[in-house]
Order: sequence, then C-alpha cells, then structure tokens
Amino acid sequence: MDLGIRGRRAILLASSRGLGRACAESIAREGVDVVVNGRTADDVATAVEELSARYDVQVEGVVGDSSTVEVHDALLAACPEPDIVLLNGEGPSPMPFGRIDAAAMEASLQQSLIGPLMFVQRVLPGMCDRGFGRIVAVSSAMVKSPNPMMSLSHGPRLGLTGVLKGLSKDVVRHDVTINQLLPERFDTGRQQQMANLVMKLKGITYDEARAEQVASIKAGRLGRPDEFGDAFAFLCAAQSGYLSGQNLQLDGGSYEGVF
Amino acid sequence: MDLGIRGRRAILLASSRGLGRACAESIAREGVDVVVNGRTADDVATAVEELSARYDVQVEGVVGDSSTVEVHDALLAACPEPDIVLLNGEGPSPMPFGRIDAAAMEASLQQSLIGPLMFVQRVLPGMCDRGFGRIVAVSSAMVKSPNPMMSLSHGPRLGLTGVLKGLSKDVVRHDVTINQLLPERFDTGRQQQMANLVMKLKGITYDEARAEQVASIKAGRLGRPDEFGDAFAFLCAAQSGYLSGQNLQLDGGSYEGVF
Amino acid sequence: MDLGIRGRRAILLASSRGLGRACAESIAREGVDVVVNGRTADDVATAVEELSARYDVQVEGVVGDSSTVEVHDALLAACPEPDIVLLNGEGPSPMPFGRIDAAAMEASLQQSLIGPLMFVQRVLPGMCDRGFGRIVAVSSAMVKSPNPMMSLSHGPRLGLTGVLKGLSKDVVRHDVTINQLLPERFDTGRQQQMANLVMKLKGITYDEARAEQVASIKAGRLGRPDEFGDAFAFLCAAQSGYLSGQNLQLDGGSYEGVF
Amino acid sequence: MDLGIRGRRAILLASSRGLGRACAESIAREGVDVVVNGRTADDVATAVEELSARYDVQVEGVVGDSSTVEVHDALLAACPEPDIVLLNGEGPSPMPFGRIDAAAMEASLQQSLIGPLMFVQRVLPGMCDRGFGRIVAVSSAMVKSPNPMMSLSHGPRLGLTGVLKGLSKDVVRHDVTINQLLPERFDTGRQQQMANLVMKLKGITYDEARAEQVASIKAGRLGRPDEFGDAFAFLCAAQSGYLSGQNLQLDGGSYEGVF
Repeated sequence: MDLGIRGRRAILLASSRGLGRACAESIAREGVDVVVNGRTADDVATAVEELSARYDVQVEGVVGDSSTVEVHDALLAACPEPDIVLLNGEGPSPMPFGRIDAAAMEASLQQSLIGPLMFVQRVLPGMCDRGFGRIVAVSSAMVKSPNPMMSLSHGPRLGLTGVLKGLSKDVVRHDVTINQLLPERFDTGRQQQMANLVMKLKGITYDEARAEQVASIKAGRLGRPDEFGDAFAFLCAAQSGYLSGQNLQLDGGSYEGVF
Repeated sequence: MDLGIRGRRAILLASSRGLGRACAESIAREGVDVVVNGRTADDVATAVEELSARYDVQVEGVVGDSSTVEVHDALLAACPEPDIVLLNGEGPSPMPFGRIDAAAMEASLQQSLIGPLMFVQRVLPGMCDRGFGRIVAVSSAMVKSPNPMMSLSHGPRLGLTGVLKGLSKDVVRHDVTINQLLPERFDTGRQQQMANLVMKLKGITYDEARAEQVASIKAGRLGRPDEFGDAFAFLCAAQSGYLSGQNLQLDGGSYEGVF
Repeated sequence: MDLGIRGRRAILLASSRGLGRACAESIAREGVDVVVNGRTADDVATAVEELSARYDVQVEGVVGDSSTVEVHDALLAACPEPDIVLLNGEGPSPMPFGRIDAAAMEASLQQSLIGPLMFVQRVLPGMCDRGFGRIVAVSSAMVKSPNPMMSLSHGPRLGLTGVLKGLSKDVVRHDVTINQLLPERFDTGRQQQMANLVMKLKGITYDEARAEQVASIKAGRLGRPDEFGDAFAFLCAAQSGYLSGQNLQLDGGSYEGVF
Repeated sequence: MDLGIRGRRAILLASSRGLGRACAESIAREGVDVVVNGRTADDVATAVEELSARYDVQVEGVVGDSSTVEVHDALLAACPEPDIVLLNGEGPSPMPFGRIDAAAMEASLQQSLIGPLMFVQRVLPGMCDRGFGRIVAVSSAMVKSPNPMMSLSHGPRLGLTGVLKGLSKDVVRHDVTINQLLPERFDTGRQQQMANLVMKLKGITYDEARAEQVASIKAGRLGRPDEFGDAFAFLCAAQSGYLSGQNLQLDGGSYEGVF
C-alpha cells in the first residue's frame, strides 16, 4: 500500500529506542525524512546511523529531553516545517497515590502534558497553513482503564488526550489530523526492565515474569514494535486525512469496553 | 507498506458498489483473492470484470442479499476457507420512531444483526483453527451518536457492535481480529441519492444539498471511498493482529466525544 | 429528600420480584401508584398484597410476559397515562456463540429489544403531551463490557441502549427523561440460582460459589436490591428532569473504564 | 427518601455560591454538618448565616482559594474527619490554544488537578479506616466533549477524572465512593456573567444572549442549581455505596454519545 508520504518530513520525539524508534523505522521506510530524538547521545547516534543505512532518506538526530524548550528549538532548527510529528516521551514509574507529592505530579505534568502541548503549539499553525499535518501521540491503554498505581502516568496523559481531541476538531479541515495510539505491553526494553524488576521482587524466574506480562494480554503475546510502527505509519498516510480525533488501542484486544 | 496478505482469500458482503467495493479494490490491490457480492447481477458482473482486469488475483461474484443463508452458502462454496471477511449490507431508510412497527424492526434486525452473526458463526471456527482471520464490519458513526430518525439502523448495528466486541475477546489469541469501521458521509451513490432526495424535499439545488452534507463534517468535505478501502486493508494486514475489538471512526474528525 | 412524585402513576414491567420489585418498593414509598407485573399469578398477587400493605398508594397487578402486546394492553388498561415506566424483563441464559441459532437470537431480540420499544412507543407521546415522563430501563453492566458467553443478552440490550439514547434527545424538552441502570451482581434470586448452578458444576459449596460472585465485584459484596430501587427512584424524581440519556452503572465500582 | 446521612460531616470546596452552594444546601437539608468555603469573606459569611438559619446542622466557613495547602489545613482543622467531600473550584476563562503559555497551563493544573488531588490524599485514608466516604468532584460536560477554546479547563479536569477513576477502584471496598458530576449550563452567576459578556461582544440583548445559552441544551432550558445539589446529595447517600467511579452528566440530555 502506497502511503503517499514520500518526501514528507517528520519530527519524532523520544524515538531513539522502543516504540518511538519503531515509528521512525516505519515512516523512513515509506520515504519520509526523519529527525529522531533521545536522551543519550549514543542512542541517538545509533538510531541515526542505522536509519540512514537502511533507508534512502535524510536522518538527523537531536539529543535531549523532548519536553524542554531547548530540545524543541533544536528539533525545529533541524526541521523547520514538519509534516508529521510523533509526540512521545518516557513515562513515570508506578507509585501508590498516597506517596505522590505536588512536585512529582508537576514534573510528570511537565513531561507528559505541558511539554508536548508547547511543541504542538509551535508546529500546528504551519501545518494548517501548508494544508497537511499528521500529529500522533503515544499514549497508554491506561487512559481508558486507569490503574491506581499509575496516577502519574494516566493523569497527565488523559489531560493531553482531552486537549488534543479538542484541537483536532479545529484543524481537520486543513488536512491536519491528530490521533493517539494507546499501547499495552509491547516487547520493548521497558517490558524487559519491568520483568527484571518483578523477577527480583517476587523471587520468580525471568520467564515466569514474562509469562505474567503476557497473561494480562488477550492476544496471548506481547505486541511487536514493528506492529506499532506500522499503525503509526498508517495514521500518517495521505489517505488517512479523514481519520482524526481517534484513540486507537494497540493492546492485543485486551480492553474490555465496547467503546 | 507491505500488508503481508498476498495470497489470502476474502469474502466481502455487499461489495459490488460503494464502500464495500472500495474495500474489495484495496485488498485486491494487495494481492488478496476476493469473492464480491451484491444484490443485482449487473453490479456484481461489473465488479468482477473490473477487479479482474485491474489486479492479478482471483475474483468471483455471488448475487443476492448478503443476510440470507442461501447467499452465505454460495459465498462459502466460492471460498470455503476465507481469511478475511467484510460484513456489510444496505442500511434502512430514516423513519420516525413512532412509525416503526415490530415487522420493520424485525426486518432490520435480520438484515443488520442476525444475518451477519450467522455468517460469522460459519467462518470463525475455521479462522481460529487456521490461526489467522480478519473480520471487519462496516457499521455507522451513529452507533456512537444515535440519531432519533435512524433507530432502525443504529439499534441493530449497536447490537452487532456488542456481540462482535464480546467475540473478539475470545479469538484474538488465534490471530483472529474483529473490528468495525464507523463511516460518516462518504461520497458514494447513497450520499448522492440522499442529496437528490433533500433537493426535492427542501426545494434547493443539488449543490446546496451537497453543501449541507458537507456542513456536518468537520473535515469540510465528504470522505473518499478509497480512504475507506485503505483503512479496511490496514485492519486486514498481517501486522494488525494486535489490534482488535476497535471501533475506528472514519468521519472527518466529526465525533465530539473523547472516546 | 422529597422526590416530588407523590400522586404520580407508574407501570413497572417485570416487577413482581428481584430488582423490578425493589424499584416498585422505592417509588411506592414515595407515594407513586404502581402497576406491577410478573409472569406468575402468585408472585404478582404477593407483590400487590405486600406493596398495598406497606404504602398508602394504589397498587394493581398484571400477570404475563412483559414483552407481549397483550400484557402491554392490560398494563395500559390498568394505567392509561403512566408518568413513570420501568422497562425490565428476564434475561437469557449464558450460551456459547457457536450454539446460538437465528431462532434463539430472534426470541431474545423480541424479549429485550422489540417488546420494550413497542411499549415505549405507546407511552411516549402521552408523556410528551402531558409534559412529564420518566422512563428507566434495567439493562446490564455487560452493555459496556460484553462477555462472549452472553451475546443473547448484550446484543439486544445494546440495541435498546442505542435506540433509547436517540429517543432521549427528542423528548427531554418535554421534561421526559430516558435513562438506563446497568446492574452487576445484585443479591437477588437470580444470583442465588446461579450460585446453585455453579456449586453443582464445579463441585464446590454454596458459600464458595457466593464468594466467587463477590470476587469479581470491587466493592467486595453484592449489591442490595434496595440500593437499586432507590437509584431508580432518584432518576424518577421531579428534580431529575435535567438528567437524561445516561447509563448509570450500579456495579460496586467494578467497571474498569473511565467512561 | 431518607438518604441515611444525618449526622455526617462534609467539607465542600468552593461552596459559597453557585453549584457548590447548592450542594451544601441539599446535604444540610438532609442533616449533614457542613464546612463551606469560598474566596471572599462576605460570600462565606452569607452562606454560613443562611445555611445555619435554614437547617438544624453545624455550619462553618473557611475563606480562601480551595486549591491551596493553607485552605486545606483550615478546612481540616474545622472538620478533621469528613465523611463527605465536594471537590469544586473556579474554572478558567476561554482562551484560544495558541495563546496558552506554560505558566497559564501550570496555574490551571494547580487549580483543577493538583490542588484537588492533594486534598483527596489527606482525606482518603481516614475515610477508608472509618469505612465510609463520599467524594464527588464537580467536573464539566467538556471532559467528554472537549471544546478547543477551553483547553485550560478540560485538560486538567480530564486528568483529574482519570486519577479519581483509578483511585475509586481501590477504595470502594471500604464503602468509600468517588464520582463526578458533569454539569452543562446551569443557571448560576457564571452563566449570567457569560450572557453579559456575549451581550456586549455581539451587540445583542441580555435575553438574546440567554436564549443562545439555552439553544445548545436539548432540554430547552438551563439547569437549576437545586437539581444539581440533589444529584450530589443522592451520590452521598448511604444507599449509594454500590455506585462509584461514575461520571454523571447533568446537561439537559445534551450529550450526543451513547456512553
């Protein structure tokens, strides 16, 4: 399927590893020039190198925390007129509600809500003027099914969900779409880390910890990052301009609700 | 993007024209053998001829009402082991609630709920046994935003939505997904018919009637059938096996709700 | 709290026992004349007797299946101008999807969708003319979280949910509201029956079977029918005229989703 | 209907006027001791005086911004063990997304998300220990239907919605419920202010501005604060312990969606 985005330019926040990286792969494969971003110089360099080697597109890298103004500046210096933007960032660790203080909540809101919105503010007018834009946020299945241990995650993310939905109504007439992907349990470094953590906490083997992760997924397996990347690529397609304001769950069919 | 479905076989209910036909085009283009279906022999013959001419796949046609056992028999005779099924069918006309009698509701339930479910019953076990299946139902934006003039449509369709969602939970572990597409106002013969109807009822021009249709769509235009077809194709992709139980709105971003 | 409905008249379908009976109790206590209904003459006679003894209101009984025209006729003969209507009826037994045939689905649709809608059709115009009406349907938590064993239940019920929602939009300006209550696991005869069934199937004790029922409820207990009845009474209150088109879950806080 | 809360104690944030005040009235009438709160000393004094005169309950007042630690301290000094808590606060003014800066978003998050959560943190453990609690947040219809001019409102409010839903799952087993009320267009000072604003902006009369407010409400009228207060009282009832995690829309039936 031709996605009709060859020659487009994309900025992908937090894309040097994991799901963000998979998104970069999927659209680079479709001929999109990409600016990747990550917190560590090594990861970014590796991503730039590998993407450049595999695909015939321009690839640049920006090192730093994707929620900061400085990194936004650098990203837009590298690509002043992005057609495609991936909003992504590291999520917080689980924490019981009773232990969350105002500072922790503020930090998480800066990371997952204010930072992304400030970046959207800078790219949205240009997308509307140019008559094409695809903004996709990596959210979490928990925005529809909140887990009480993850208030620092789903609180800010639900806030973002609402603001993006509101904005989407205003810009779709310019062929600018805003959608979210809601992953649950993809086989990335994060799930491997969590398995290691659970292994130690519960005194079980790594395989048992991995089996526990799978047990909550109706598909009977973790998701593959390339599946996530291709869903992102589809939302970015030229022919996806009539699809906006959606929250697409990539969760192995695990969500219980009808809508 | 390679959807990984070359050589798969599909049965598409009510696919000789409109959105169903667009779905057939999109997967035939990806190398899927298709059985198309429609109520009139001419439409089916034309669809078979055009699809065969354009794509290097097997194309067969079955004439008849897609909600009947006889047509189900004929479809399965033409393709006993479908990998992909499109559930689609003609919708009822608007009718004020007060004028709906039990017979009208029964007919609509047979058409839009019982018929499709009886067909799903016949294909689902085989899909699970073979370890691959993609079932997609063409529903309506109204299943999330019911219009009181369309009870005959959204009543049965919401019933189907619920049953399919329940089933999806049981089969996703076999790489069998069940999703729905919720269109609103695509530029098919149906919208042209409705524009003609409104033109006469209101004494306005055809262009004015078309403008009214567009006015309710935030994208400022009607959807194009090929956009619908490609969304269907994406849901059928090999790499969409982690995406199930979803109701994807293709409505030009018009739905007001967050979820 | 004064609900402002003293002297109002209500028809309650399937109200001789269980949740329907609890609804009758709660509004009779508030001074509403009630027509109760049930399938067996004994149950209806008992309900009429007990309600009459406890509350200073008119109580009448109609025996028969609440989804039939004959019973609708009898109910409206007993109360030609109801202000309040409870839609309720017996639900189907669990059945694997593969074993459902068209006849079983038709019977369930008649019982849980067509029957209730035909009754709504008869009472709604009068409510609108008189400028007051409260229609409440007893639905099920499963309309938001479908269980694949219960397609015969949530299919028809979701259809009803959609049609009632659509209708609610048209009539709320006449102070006629239409809402649904979505119970999960109330301590009625039905749960006791199911515990007996599970006890035999699994070879466990009755207490163990009851504990299993409770295990799925976040409140750690079953609901009490009087809690259900009082929620119904609140929806019927004069001061609830601004509350319509809602699906209120009474499930011990068990639903996982945000909305 | 006896709500079973006579003798209970409540803290109501932002309750000296408008919807918060109506909530105080409804539960004081049911015999609940109340601590009211508002930003101006006059309003609080008036509320205390009027509530004390009308109802035979203890009434205290705390002046100040309900999102601050100082006010939380004062509220808990006045009522160390509240059984009932109303989360409420002033909402932000409309603002186009492009004009929102990080400071504005931070201020709104402090007001509508962090402040309320910090207060919940202080009252929730005690409610669980004592085995009874009713927390109700005044949210907004926009958390389900975001308006792009109101990002400062629905962003923080949706964040709160998610965190409260998550928490509700953990505490309902202690007979502690957490619910939200989602009002749209109640006849309070705020709507009168907005009508005055629109009157000037559009050069229309006050009555025309009021008619515009009503035009968006399917009930054909604004809501009455006492209707809101009584819905709050019902959620606080002893017999509402099985009803938790819900978002009850009080919007004159205006929301278009099924769920």
